[in-house]
Amino acid sequence: MPDAGVVAIVAGGGRFPAEVAEAARAAGRQVAVIALRGFADKDVAGKPHAVVDMLDPAGLLELLSGIKPDCVVLAGAVTRPGPLALASVFSAFRNRDELARIFAKGDDRLLRGAVGLIEDAGFRVVGAQEIAPGILAPEGAIGAVAPRPEHQRDIVTGTELLAVTGPFDIGQAVVVCGGRVLAVEGPEGTDAMLERVAGLQRSKRVRLDGQGGVLVKRPKSGQDLRVDLPAIGPRTVERARAAGLAGIAVQAGGVVLVDRAELLRAADRVGLFVVGTGA
Amino acid sequence: MPDAGVVAIVAGGGRFPAEVAEAARAAGRQVAVIALRGFADKDVAGKPHAVVDMLDPAGLLELLSGIKPDCVVLAGAVTRPGPLALASVFSAFRNRDELARIFAKGDDRLLRGAVGLIEDAGFRVVGAQEIAPGILAPEGAIGAVAPRPEHQRDIVTGTELLAVTGPFDIGQAVVVCGGRVLAVEGPEGTDAMLERVAGLQRSKRVRLDGQGGVLVKRPKSGQDLRVDLPAIGPRTVERARAAGLAGIAVQAGGVVLVDRAELLRAADRVGLFVVGTGA
Repeated sequence: MPDAGVVAIVAGGGRFPAEVAEAARAAGRQVAVIALRGFADKDVAGKPHAVVDMLDPAGLLELLSGIKPDCVVLAGAVTRPGPLALASVFSAFRNRDELARIFAKGDDRLLRGAVGLIEDAGFRVVGAQEIAPGILAPEGAIGAVAPRPEHQRDIVTGTELLAVTGPFDIGQAVVVCGGRVLAVEGPEGTDAMLERVAGLQRSKRVRLDGQGGVLVKRPKSGQDLRVDLPAIGPRTVERARAAGLAGIAVQAGGVVLVDRAELLRAADRVGLFVVGTGA
Repeated sequence: MPDAGVVAIVAGGGRFPAEVAEAARAAGRQVAVIALRGFADKDVAGKPHAVVDMLDPAGLLELLSGIKPDCVVLAGAVTRPGPLALASVFSAFRNRDELARIFAKGDDRLLRGAVGLIEDAGFRVVGAQEIAPGILAPEGAIGAVAPRPEHQRDIVTGTELLAVTGPFDIGQAVVVCGGRVLAVEGPEGTDAMLERVAGLQRSKRVRLDGQGGVLVKRPKSGQDLRVDLPAIGPRTVERARAAGLAGIAVQAGGVVLVDRAELLRAADRVGLFVVGTGA
């Protein structure tokens, strides 16, 4: 079986799919990248096994049938398709009610729906962390800077808040400063939320008073890590710095550090802490 | 006692202080408006009893001693003062630790602290709704339009979410559409949150798919309604409409309808529902 042990990576946007592919190859796995048209970055899409439209699940399943992968990984960002685009998916599938239910709900259910379709066709879907566990944040201070006690308190507040919002279809990150919640992430994503926190200060609605403030990011309770692994990268550090924050706290073993070396270089350079905290 | 029964209104920004003053006068009360310099609107500040700086609590207490009010109402918006401004307050007060603790925390604690200072001086602070109960939202459909069953579900989701975020120092409003939480209000306020929801659609991150979506606004659990009464007004309707929402749900008896007649005219005109829901 020449195809035994192949990892199929369905690649959305960002550097993450390439990192997963590299990590899997470094671990001795054969890798077949299926790039999602319009989403996958060029450095991934430059040499993919195949390219497929995200609105062509039948085409994706056919490609997977040809690859016969040991497991399938969904990696990288996608955005929810528009109603016209969805109509073509509806027309291609028999079980329209099921699809309509999936697409009517949040990204979570959308992605779980995609996993369901792939699994129903007989493939095993695993999280990127299963084939590349080194991509996840470890426990404790990861960069050169450690959080101070007031930051530890904000980390606890943010963690508690995310614990209660987790059951809702909502973001995975919050910004807390001195016990005050400055932002809860919605569909805009972490970068845009950090930009909002910077804006709150520009408009004088919020002053961080030298204390900093903390970005806390964790998987939602019950989140399917096979489809939506929270991540931070060098850009997150830049945005957190621009928002005047003192650091970033992520759940150890629950959040990906994309481009870790550059991320930590950037954090150390500007004096931001990056810390992995318990479940 | 010529001053018996006087209501002292400490007026921040917006139309609300003027409405409270009118309602109190309509109820036969004598009113003395103390305008906060830089915050109170001209139509209130045009004929105030006095003007005082929000960073001069000693001056405010002196004014109140002269007025000898039956009760004091804090009404209208203020923003948190900056660190330099606070320094002058600190220097004027003996109990600096107490003040530092108050000002280090969120708006909630800041305002509760202000209430504490006024009460400690022997005055009775009451909520605006106590002297003008007609300003609060009643139960049920308030305008001409009623929410549909899918909106009712979103109202339940938003209410449940606000119930769990209530113990945190965070906003009082959320936007929900089809079970998905599109935004949680932070220090930016309701108007800016609605603008964000409009932006999510412009950037194609979110599509409301014709269903609408609902703004849910309620007091926080444990919120002191004497200092921070949530409110909606005609502008809220405009912003909700611009954000593509189907309607607004507020807690009956817990949220002020500012400029109610114009608010309902605007809502009816664009077909938005405005509904008061139970505790």
